[in-house]
Amino acid sequence: MSYKAPVEQIEFILHHVVPFADVAATGLYEEATPETTAAILSEAGKLASNVLAPLNPNGDHTPARLENGRLRSSPGYAEGFRAIAEGGWIGLAANPEHGGMGLPQALNMAVSEMMAGACLALQLNPLLTQGQIEALEHHASDALKALYLPRLIAGEWSGTMNLTEPGAGSDVGALVTKAEPNGDGSYAITGQKIFITWGDSDVTENVCHLVLARLPDGAKGTRGISLFMVPKLIPDAAGRPGLANSLKVVSLEEKMGIHGSPTCVMSFEGATGWLVGEEHKGMAAMFTMMNCARLGVGMQGVGVAEAALQKAVGYAAERNQMGPIIRHPDMRRMLAVARAEVFAARAIGLACATAIDLERANGDAHHAARAAFLTPIAKAYGTDVGCRVADIGVQVHGGMGYVEETGAAQYLRDVRITPIYEGTNGIQAMDLVGRKLSDGGEAAMRLLDEVLDGAKSAQADHPELANHVWQAAETLREATQALLERGLPQRFAGAVPYLAAFARVLGAHFHLRAAQAGNAAQQALARIHITRVLPHFAGDLAEAMAALDDLEALPDAAMAGDFAA
Amino acid sequence: MSYKAPVEQIEFILHHVVPFADVAATGLYEEATPETTAAILSEAGKLASNVLAPLNPNGDHTPARLENGRLRSSPGYAEGFRAIAEGGWIGLAANPEHGGMGLPQALNMAVSEMMAGACLALQLNPLLTQGQIEALEHHASDALKALYLPRLIAGEWSGTMNLTEPGAGSDVGALVTKAEPNGDGSYAITGQKIFITWGDSDVTENVCHLVLARLPDGAKGTRGISLFMVPKLIPDAAGRPGLANSLKVVSLEEKMGIHGSPTCVMSFEGATGWLVGEEHKGMAAMFTMMNCARLGVGMQGVGVAEAALQKAVGYAAERNQMGPIIRHPDMRRMLAVARAEVFAARAIGLACATAIDLERANGDAHHAARAAFLTPIAKAYGTDVGCRVADIGVQVHGGMGYVEETGAAQYLRDVRITPIYEGTNGIQAMDLVGRKLSDGGEAAMRLLDEVLDGAKSAQADHPELANHVWQAAETLREATQALLERGLPQRFAGAVPYLAAFARVLGAHFHLRAAQAGNAAQQALARIHITRVLPHFAGDLAEAMAALDDLEALPDAAMAGDFAA
Repeated sequence: MSYKAPVEQIEFILHHVVPFADVAATGLYEEATPETTAAILSEAGKLASNVLAPLNPNGDHTPARLENGRLRSSPGYAEGFRAIAEGGWIGLAANPEHGGMGLPQALNMAVSEMMAGACLALQLNPLLTQGQIEALEHHASDALKALYLPRLIAGEWSGTMNLTEPGAGSDVGALVTKAEPNGDGSYAITGQKIFITWGDSDVTENVCHLVLARLPDGAKGTRGISLFMVPKLIPDAAGRPGLANSLKVVSLEEKMGIHGSPTCVMSFEGATGWLVGEEHKGMAAMFTMMNCARLGVGMQGVGVAEAALQKAVGYAAERNQMGPIIRHPDMRRMLAVARAEVFAARAIGLACATAIDLERANGDAHHAARAAFLTPIAKAYGTDVGCRVADIGVQVHGGMGYVEETGAAQYLRDVRITPIYEGTNGIQAMDLVGRKLSDGGEAAMRLLDEVLDGAKSAQADHPELANHVWQAAETLREATQALLERGLPQRFAGAVPYLAAFARVLGAHFHLRAAQAGNAAQQALARIHITRVLPHFAGDLAEAMAALDDLEALPDAAMAGDFAA
Repeated sequence: MSYKAPVEQIEFILHHVVPFADVAATGLYEEATPETTAAILSEAGKLASNVLAPLNPNGDHTPARLENGRLRSSPGYAEGFRAIAEGGWIGLAANPEHGGMGLPQALNMAVSEMMAGACLALQLNPLLTQGQIEALEHHASDALKALYLPRLIAGEWSGTMNLTEPGAGSDVGALVTKAEPNGDGSYAITGQKIFITWGDSDVTENVCHLVLARLPDGAKGTRGISLFMVPKLIPDAAGRPGLANSLKVVSLEEKMGIHGSPTCVMSFEGATGWLVGEEHKGMAAMFTMMNCARLGVGMQGVGVAEAALQKAVGYAAERNQMGPIIRHPDMRRMLAVARAEVFAARAIGLACATAIDLERANGDAHHAARAAFLTPIAKAYGTDVGCRVADIGVQVHGGMGYVEETGAAQYLRDVRITPIYEGTNGIQAMDLVGRKLSDGGEAAMRLLDEVLDGAKSAQADHPELANHVWQAAETLREATQALLERGLPQRFAGAVPYLAAFARVLGAHFHLRAAQAGNAAQQALARIHITRVLPHFAGDLAEAMAALDDLEALPDAAMAGDFAA
């Protein structure tokens, strides 16, 4: 079964589950009418289903490779990228001043999900380019904006994020790449970066690297880091790519999946760069890029989950073992739970996107806090669902799932990167219980109030389901209050299961809304989530509240299996 | 960090957690003294750590391949297999009459775990050979036994299991391979088999296929199936491999992992075979082989989990991000939970093995029922833990985990087959709630009584932990009774989460015993299991008891994402 972009489910969620109508009611996004929305989703869905999805096996079978130091992308990728660029999809949410369409992130994320579901390895390129556009819009000088944004938005050039170094992964502050003033306003960038996605490209005429580096007077740690634009080919004033910069791809990583996406070791050897934003304030600019990318990665998880699930359902409907296996209760359980989680993850992601849109349109602190709180949940839960559903997809296929030719295994191998990159899901969870609860729990409690109100309003039509959701939200509220009284290391020890519990409750909340607004099938799905997915929140919370002391009491040697001490 | 066979943990479990002392007290296994046990585990551990573990990357980098129709195994595999054979490990539990050592399955399974942890793709060969030995011991004629068993036990020949056909996976009864009498006591076997592990081998001089096929008068379904020994080279009366049989490897599958284990499409073209057991009773003989292999596969999961966890702990201890990451609370949580689950899965597997040993030694129905009940749990939980811990291993490595060079991803790709083969974990769970509860729940209740008694006896020393375990066992008992009142389709819909809940409770039970018998580290680990792993049983049971009707109410189209209907 080939991938079919889930246009109708996305529209249902936008119009009935998350406050997209509020977004469209703002002055900033007044063009996002239901008609425009439908047209955009339909067009993007066609591109994803018809043009991008057929490319997905190509990247896996014929990985990107280096040839004499130059990147050769997988067959068809260049054409696929051009189709994305020419459709205007890269600039969907970008500022119209530089050629963007200025539409809401909610639409952009829905489109991203479909493209990622169709071909994750290729979609990474526009996703990172979009992140770079956002960072430049917020932090770059007018000159840099004028030079780079139109080309990035048009998809003539692509963008990368150069953050990680061999000695500095999650600990960005440890980076050692140097930036030295050239005296002409530019800087000489020297250092090595690893895990640079699409660090070179033959699908665009230039590759624009945003590089974190330390100026000579930069303090140690994250507060001494600045951000630089370091293009592969240095553009002249008219924007024509010219001289090759002093940078190169040293090698490509051999990875478990996303073989079509080149993961580069980059070497900058006195490469010419231009400061983006203020000196020593590089982390703030990078966070702009990363925040956008985090939600985008969450939607990647949703997209791959959707694609893997469609494939599994297709197989289960055709495969006969005493009747089609889709009729077997255990198969139905796997597929139905997967569908319930895909719905929940998509709704959480689009709820986060609408909060971002409402923050931008209204400039209010409430939506800013809501978006900030939902982002780590959308990233971690979306990517966890991506892995869980792709794993179910393999299991539904049985032995055929383990054989590469079916493609079920590719989804699992591809999506496995998503809980790691753009901040591991552990980092997301620590962000949630740390920074995102540093408001004393206000954003969390607001969300939980919304869940409780929702449950009350569903009481008449769906009393049993509404009660489950209400109870779960109350328990989560108590757990949140208990968590707030703990120190950070204590919170960190339970961060991942706490995030998981929160995602279950939010997912149940959105399912309850869907049950109220939707048909019998949507109601059946809500029941499945609330009776099969939600109940695990209690175990998650028990784990979240378990004592850090116990973890400290287990010696490192015992973790490795040596209990002799 | 290279793999170190967990000899001490296995000895601790055998001597303090499962009734291995009872096994050694029987006449049949009186040789299994603590000294012999220690010597055997230590020798096997050395072989696993020093000889087999270094071969593990070879299979992944240089997969088994066909060359002019003949198999070429991965570099070093032949030497590795010879070392296993020459150590006498294949016949560890086999009947001494034909050259076996006649030692308990508990020891054999412990050794299997270590070899699988060291090199899963290679260990599959002796594992399947052992299954064949067991099937022949129970069902073959004396002549077949005399001809085949000594060579299989010595590792001169290897054994395969030919069950699956293109149209018959979990539905074995649909198979169409034919067996026709040749008139001389032999049969002509014709048909195609798929997913045949080590269907050819250049590490042994002959390959012995046990093939399920249907005689001309065989009924439809599983009751018309017979089992045949079909050797690659037909041995003369003295056991010298002679004429090539009419069978061949058509192709090898390209798989997600275990690249060193050739997965063959086999074609039997009037190949000469000999009946094993009675006509039309092939399924019974095959089940003997599969039951042994099921527990063995569960131990494969444990073995790979151990290896993946050791690697992850080693990385976490060395990797610095503001101090070694093993000190970070979220890392400790992942590693500690993984260690707790490895302990639980190993204890469950060895408890199952000791039940098999006590059944054989004593011939009593009680231990037979216990072994039968524990087998699907040991298989499914062991392999689920294998996948979960290998997944944690990747996550602990961060971006490095997704890069193949570290080996963390190989564990995940390799172990992913284990929940699928030898009966998917769904099949195991249905076996548990179907056949294994068909005694009215007697075996289940006996186990739960043991858990409750254990909790009572731990009450004085570990009151809090004992209470948790007692409560969980009581709740599980009630759920089991409720399940018994349901029809099979209803039970099947909740089978997988029910099995998961049972495994959590059993795991907690064995941890409680370990806490009573072990040191502070073992007690800390028990706390981690009982406060972090066990509590999820409630969610599992909620899912297990959720209504089948809800699954039926969700249309197939909606599972695929189409809610329009």
